[in-house]
Amino acid sequence: MTTTDTMICGLSRDAFLDRLSAFHGFTAPGLVLGGFMVDEAQHLIRTHMGPNVEADAIVETRHCLPDAIQIFTPCTIGNGWLKILDWGKFALSLYDKHSLNGFRVWFDISKAAQFPNLYNWYMRRVSKKDLPIDVLLASIFEAGKDALSSKAVSITQAYSRAGKGDTAVCPGCGEVYPTAQGGQCAACQGDAYYKIVQQK
Amino acid sequence: MTTTDTMICGLSRDAFLDRLSAFHGFTAPGLVLGGFMVDEAQHLIRTHMGPNVEADAIVETRHCLPDAIQIFTPCTIGNGWLKILDWGKFALSLYDKHSLNGFRVWFDISKAAQFPNLYNWYMRRVSKKDLPIDVLLASIFEAGKDALSSKAVSITQAYSRAGKGDTAVCPGCGEVYPTAQGGQCAACQGDAYYKIVQQK
Repeated sequence: MTTTDTMICGLSRDAFLDRLSAFHGFTAPGLVLGGFMVDEAQHLIRTHMGPNVEADAIVETRHCLPDAIQIFTPCTIGNGWLKILDWGKFALSLYDKHSLNGFRVWFDISKAAQFPNLYNWYMRRVSKKDLPIDVLLASIFEAGKDALSSKAVSITQAYSRAGKGDTAVCPGCGEVYPTAQGGQCAACQGDAYYKIVQQK
Repeated sequence: MTTTDTMICGLSRDAFLDRLSAFHGFTAPGLVLGGFMVDEAQHLIRTHMGPNVEADAIVETRHCLPDAIQIFTPCTIGNGWLKILDWGKFALSLYDKHSLNGFRVWFDISKAAQFPNLYNWYMRRVSKKDLPIDVLLASIFEAGKDALSSKAVSITQAYSRAGKGDTAVCPGCGEVYPTAQGGQCAACQGDAYYKIVQQK
């Protein structure tokens, strides 16, 4: 159980919450839970693998959790050290980028059952109206790492980013694009997500 | 041309570079270029659409540029206001999330040809050894917005995130997963990216 003076990712509760909302825009409960998960994975790596591991990250949902990793580890989507799987599971792995050994940490719904507000929120058994954010956050802090499980893992698909491949100037739009897409870029082939607006 | 006292995203050159490397881990040239692109898109929205637009973002490459958006706008991959297309094009759009109107800004290789170091780096005509990072950064700052083009756009595919759908406890692993994946979660169906390691 988490006491009020618990440090999360090296920060006091208030500083931790401030960091989350500064990046994410608001204090999402999933992000708070994610902070505990990152803290646990980092703790396991330090304890079992030493203090100098350069850890890459894989996260198993697009929702909230990627931001906890981007805030509290060096891994970001833009630097490529974070990979996101759209699996809808609240789980993450941090692992040594050289040995591929690390730890997977997940939200364990069987353990979370001890914390009814946390459980009911995650299982969507209660509306936002009936579970104010402050009450939910108190439940998340009460649970802390007691709602998490973890296992040592070895990464079997490192999901390394494909190289950028050859590029050329698209004859349609004049922009540089990967020639693996064909004779024109994806947008000029009809996949553009936008239409040009004539400005007055 | 960018003078030494130019502000980028509201910051001095040094503060701008510090923000980039604090988040991204190092001063990637593409991220510096991306800062100018975000600044330009925000400037266009303020000028043409007013100061109070809540802008969502779409970025057309996974490399570097997503981090410029995450650093200098409220949009992140975890809060869902940033969408990433793996198109390999150095371009982004910021747009009003309600009207879907906004601006697309792209790195314009025909304009960049005036800045040989920038051009040769982007077209991969020079090795890192032959183009030190400081020289390249000086070229990027010299070019600034002069290597960018932009157009007003209307977003035609908003790429709204699919709802989370129904979830259940996976009979294989006991974790909660989206039932759209089938009778078991993706990992239990054989797609796991990890194997469990027995700890000593």
